[in-house]
Amino acid sequence: MAEQIAREARRSSAILKTLSNADRNEALQLIHDTLKESKATIIEANRLDLEAAEKANLSSSLIKRLDLTKGDKYDSMLQGVLDVANLPDPVGKITLATRLDEGLDLYRITCPVGVLLVIFEARPEVIANIGALALKSGNAAILKGGKESTNSFKAMANAVNQALAKSKVPANAIQLVTTRDEVSELLAQDEHIDLVIPRGSNELVRNIKNNTKIPVMGHADGICSIYLTAEAKPEMAARVAVDAKTNYPAGCNAVETLLVDQKALKETAAFKATILALLEAGVKLKVTPEIKIAIDGFLEQGSKFGSLIVPATEQDFYTEFLEFTLAVKAVASLDDAIEHINQHGSHHTDCILTENEAAAEKFLKGIDSAGVYWNASTRFADGFRYGFGTEVGVSTGKIHARGPVGLEGLVGYQYNLRGSGQVAGDYAGAGGSRQFKHEQIKL
Amino acid sequence: MAEQIAREARRSSAILKTLSNADRNEALQLIHDTLKESKATIIEANRLDLEAAEKANLSSSLIKRLDLTKGDKYDSMLQGVLDVANLPDPVGKITLATRLDEGLDLYRITCPVGVLLVIFEARPEVIANIGALALKSGNAAILKGGKESTNSFKAMANAVNQALAKSKVPANAIQLVTTRDEVSELLAQDEHIDLVIPRGSNELVRNIKNNTKIPVMGHADGICSIYLTAEAKPEMAARVAVDAKTNYPAGCNAVETLLVDQKALKETAAFKATILALLEAGVKLKVTPEIKIAIDGFLEQGSKFGSLIVPATEQDFYTEFLEFTLAVKAVASLDDAIEHINQHGSHHTDCILTENEAAAEKFLKGIDSAGVYWNASTRFADGFRYGFGTEVGVSTGKIHARGPVGLEGLVGYQYNLRGSGQVAGDYAGAGGSRQFKHEQIKL
Repeated sequence: MAEQIAREARRSSAILKTLSNADRNEALQLIHDTLKESKATIIEANRLDLEAAEKANLSSSLIKRLDLTKGDKYDSMLQGVLDVANLPDPVGKITLATRLDEGLDLYRITCPVGVLLVIFEARPEVIANIGALALKSGNAAILKGGKESTNSFKAMANAVNQALAKSKVPANAIQLVTTRDEVSELLAQDEHIDLVIPRGSNELVRNIKNNTKIPVMGHADGICSIYLTAEAKPEMAARVAVDAKTNYPAGCNAVETLLVDQKALKETAAFKATILALLEAGVKLKVTPEIKIAIDGFLEQGSKFGSLIVPATEQDFYTEFLEFTLAVKAVASLDDAIEHINQHGSHHTDCILTENEAAAEKFLKGIDSAGVYWNASTRFADGFRYGFGTEVGVSTGKIHARGPVGLEGLVGYQYNLRGSGQVAGDYAGAGGSRQFKHEQIKL
Repeated sequence: MAEQIAREARRSSAILKTLSNADRNEALQLIHDTLKESKATIIEANRLDLEAAEKANLSSSLIKRLDLTKGDKYDSMLQGVLDVANLPDPVGKITLATRLDEGLDLYRITCPVGVLLVIFEARPEVIANIGALALKSGNAAILKGGKESTNSFKAMANAVNQALAKSKVPANAIQLVTTRDEVSELLAQDEHIDLVIPRGSNELVRNIKNNTKIPVMGHADGICSIYLTAEAKPEMAARVAVDAKTNYPAGCNAVETLLVDQKALKETAAFKATILALLEAGVKLKVTPEIKIAIDGFLEQGSKFGSLIVPATEQDFYTEFLEFTLAVKAVASLDDAIEHINQHGSHHTDCILTENEAAAEKFLKGIDSAGVYWNASTRFADGFRYGFGTEVGVSTGKIHARGPVGLEGLVGYQYNLRGSGQVAGDYAGAGGSRQFKHEQIKL
């Protein structure tokens, strides 16, 4: 069964790969139209999922995610499909062009990765969102959503397949699987599936990496740090730290650790402003002893904030709190800050707050993370904010795509060599004497 | 032990990452100089390996690979280190620059992958070659060579470490491991090692993929095909096919399958010329029945070539022969050729021989391989021939680097965001009303 699904996806991807941007956009328009026409049926299916979820006493946050009728969720989803269609075509871009010799031209051209397996939570609108991203980038996709959304998914997959049947895109370019057993079998289909994209908990991502030979693009954690120097402007430092922690603490780009330079502890302007702003925002601070002493130096005894300050453990500096909690520690120097972040962080996004340019440049060069920021909130680490128009996810891997991933993360490249009968044996190094020209072709 | 090695590599990579191109080149010059000065010691160690190999009756091809005194191998190796130093710096290139807002600039900048684990055959000069590539691209590397070359490797590693001790590059940026046990433990160090590069047999590559969570960049097979159409120029088709098969049959870019369009079988000019040229070059042809019939149509009875023509099995079309053997099959159409190659090939390099532009364009678009060629020998699939100045290997994976991999395959990227205190909460989508500018920054 899983092998059949994977084979069908591979077959569809071979056709999809040859279609034009106009053909792919036509399919997206048809998906939009069909999802719009099928709204009543899909909402009815969604109601079944919601009833089951309520009966099973599932959490209100899960039910909220599940509910397609919440606010303008359905219309946003429809608009999202058209927005993806309007993005520039990521396929067919020439990224290298070299004349190897007269009449022998080499081009490197972006192309779809092939077949994607995308695993995500119980959010029905994601099927439209991810389906649109996959088709726009010329990839076939096998989708598995959280089991609580099975009825909604089936109704939506039905609509998507109806739409594709009217388009040049093969109907099996988007396939839905509904059981966990299928997923574990699909993870063995490394011959037919090119990339697994898990969206969800860290456990999910780790579990998938442990169980497949297929490359996995997922983020494992978002342990972001801010390094506060004595040379940071106090008001700016306070605003950035509060935004990074409180704007959306459940986001993987929220800050989890505040490192304070020793000098900043002594010259307390920036430190004091930042700590007070965080406390006023209701952030619980898990602090090391030297931080506690420094805070006690300016916080009145019996302050209402006293209960927000608790001792930190070593483990706190490896923790993604995902709530109004921040671990705070002093570091002796810039080098120590870089070493701490490279060892404790998750290579997601880290920030230095300083007006000292030399220190900032050293930080930008030394930190081994997908995003390295100077005087800006870590919350900017996001595909929409970066201007990609969309976001497939945020990758904390080191190869292929890193950080917020837009459509570019769903393409690879191929080399096209256009010759006129050349053979290697005529050239030096393979038996002949001809030399390669290796001239850049102007496009 | 393995964890210690991996940790040291990680620590070294953090320093290496911050060094300039001049610093890295200085280290390469020192490696060159020290290997030159240590030649006598290294050749003496190499003699021990050669004696042991002869005593153990190892194959002459292995002994040839092992022998550092063969021809100008040692001097070429020394020159190779300087050649790598002279390549353009792959690190620090800006590949995207976007003004998100006034004073909030985003840059995507190439950076080293981090820590590489490179596993290769018993070829001592590879330590200099791969070591140079790793350092040039700012990566730390852990190297494991074939066990038959242990003495040579140790002597060379000693020289490399001596050289690094005089440079700004940490001496542990290049580490050598000598036992298989260490390799299997290293494959578990996914926290510290970012990429595994196996060079060697398909079994080696597959075995490594089965035993690690670390991304693997290796090539699994080189099953390249040529699709011969009726519209190919006979003399050109013959030359390309012979070169692709016989120029270096042990190379992964040698052709293993010849697909003949049905029309080309009937209009025999190109077919006849190609088959006769292959037979004259001494290539054994494993043919399907319709190919046999077509050849019998023009080959004289009792021809000296008769014994070179044998029946093909289905398995032959999944086989990398690596010798003067070619599997030959008829296909009904261009679509069938594309389907055959996508299903049977290894996504390495495939070629169409034709003067029909429309057919060529369809082939270039439909084939799902790293290299897709029109009227040129598959033997051009090589980093030096592509103009990369070097070759790390040839990847048949679909993500990160594909096809011949130069220094670009050893770098990833990071995003630098340079702000002046901006917070996400001021912008639309995160609670505020400011709009992003998303303007391209001219560099």
